[in-house]
Amino acid sequence: MNTHITVEAPVRVRYAETDKMGVVYHSNFIVWFEIGRVELLRQMGFRYRDMEREDDCHIAVVDVRCRYKAPARYDDELIIRTQVKHLRGSMITFHYEVVRAEDKVILAEGETMHIVVNSQFEKTTLPDKYARAFAAAIKDEA
Amino acid sequence: MNTHITVEAPVRVRYAETDKMGVVYHSNFIVWFEIGRVELLRQMGFRYRDMEREDDCHIAVVDVRCRYKAPARYDDELIIRTQVKHLRGSMITFHYEVVRAEDKVILAEGETMHIVVNSQFEKTTLPDKYARAFAAAIKDEA
Amino acid sequence: MNTHITVEAPVRVRYAETDKMGVVYHSNFIVWFEIGRVELLRQMGFRYRDMEREDDCHIAVVDVRCRYKAPARYDDELIIRTQVKHLRGSMITFHYEVVRAEDKVILAEGETMHIVVNSQFEKTTLPDKYARAFAAAIKDEA
Amino acid sequence: MNTHITVEAPVRVRYAETDKMGVVYHSNFIVWFEIGRVELLRQMGFRYRDMEREDDCHIAVVDVRCRYKAPARYDDELIIRTQVKHLRGSMITFHYEVVRAEDKVILAEGETMHIVVNSQFEKTTLPDKYARAFAAAIKDEA
Repeated sequence: MNTHITVEAPVRVRYAETDKMGVVYHSNFIVWFEIGRVELLRQMGFRYRDMEREDDCHIAVVDVRCRYKAPARYDDELIIRTQVKHLRGSMITFHYEVVRAEDKVILAEGETMHIVVNSQFEKTTLPDKYARAFAAAIKDEA
Repeated sequence: MNTHITVEAPVRVRYAETDKMGVVYHSNFIVWFEIGRVELLRQMGFRYRDMEREDDCHIAVVDVRCRYKAPARYDDELIIRTQVKHLRGSMITFHYEVVRAEDKVILAEGETMHIVVNSQFEKTTLPDKYARAFAAAIKDEA
Repeated sequence: MNTHITVEAPVRVRYAETDKMGVVYHSNFIVWFEIGRVELLRQMGFRYRDMEREDDCHIAVVDVRCRYKAPARYDDELIIRTQVKHLRGSMITFHYEVVRAEDKVILAEGETMHIVVNSQFEKTTLPDKYARAFAAAIKDEA
Repeated sequence: MNTHITVEAPVRVRYAETDKMGVVYHSNFIVWFEIGRVELLRQMGFRYRDMEREDDCHIAVVDVRCRYKAPARYDDELIIRTQVKHLRGSMITFHYEVVRAEDKVILAEGETMHIVVNSQFEKTTLPDKYARAFAAAIKDEA
């Protein structure tokens, strides 16, 4: 049974995020994924800002995927549901669902894959304190 | 032999597109894909603005994928190389490469999948004049 | 004595909003002003989304001004303090302060001026129910 | 007679820059101002990227103003006309016009005020080579 920790972050759609079709422009979902990811880290006990500042540990994006199911609209209240999917060495994969709060309809889902790098973009390993927290967030149970 | 038409669109990285890592924030590549896509349509003989306005024909995004290989930096001159990959009924797939103009290094590549809809987001078919142009843009030769 | 209603809306700085100087790119403050403005309307009893949809009443921006005093940084919690400054016919002016929640330092302040238009961008008058609410929000007392 | 150098930079409106009113969201004009400003510097003989990298000289924004006269629309070709208005010590003011290429209608005009800072946001003076170029760009003649 999958018991990955799932964290929910609220987002309200901004006017600036809509386009002339009257709905949210698709690249904004990728920005929202980041909000979910950072909120997941926060719930895991650390702040991404401090990971960068204090440990020179950056989670650089190497792959993004998003599947759009229904449009998000101006002023919609959304929930970004995020979980860590894998951690393999310096490689971390997150999974996301963008849910409309009102009726729980899933508007989009996606994944992002990351490698841990220093500020020079050199591959590095995730410091132990973070690796332990990630491992705890993704443990599966039988 | 693949003879899909490939169109190149120039983009210069804006300061607003960078982030605190000192490189382009990843969601901007998705915006650049759109620039490539629209330029490809223009080279195929029509303007996306007119497709929307005159034929109520909108190419809505249903799936986006991007793989990041090297960072893009402020003021870099980039080339967005775009081709139509498939056209099946109302489903169109585009493929993109983001290339640094200076040394032709591929910074990212990706695909977007679209369905043709009207302004009410109802699935529709691509008007003949566009379908013929798309078919011409993707024909393979032996 | 100025008794204009002031509404506070929270914003947390997104990674996408930072630039290569390591701070928030300045145009994002203008987007945050809109968040403050919409929250003020909500506290005044109506939703901007419904103003547009049900009353074809749009508050188009004609003038924006922002003075930057100190940089906003990634993951900062901010408060957007908004008030209606003037209402004269179809002309509405809002005033904003962007405040860092942690220490109440004012990072920026600004104004936006708007005219009420319909969806064809033709100048129109603010329907009575809104005009009354605006008048209530800006009344000064001796 | 005002003989300030005016530089024109082309911009084509992106779909991502439009909003649900069907026109460009207003904060994007501020991003375009930056494109004009950087192009002006380029015509003056230097690259803003190198100013930052080689001389630790950053032109931080302290004040932005924009007046909107007519909407910009998707796929419009625009020209950003930029000139240096003042240089006083560490304080530089630029002036902008956003012009629709097709019919030369001015869609917006604005100013930005900047101070010269180092990467720590400490006020600094403009290195001589830049100061001379700025002076040349703004000289008035009788």
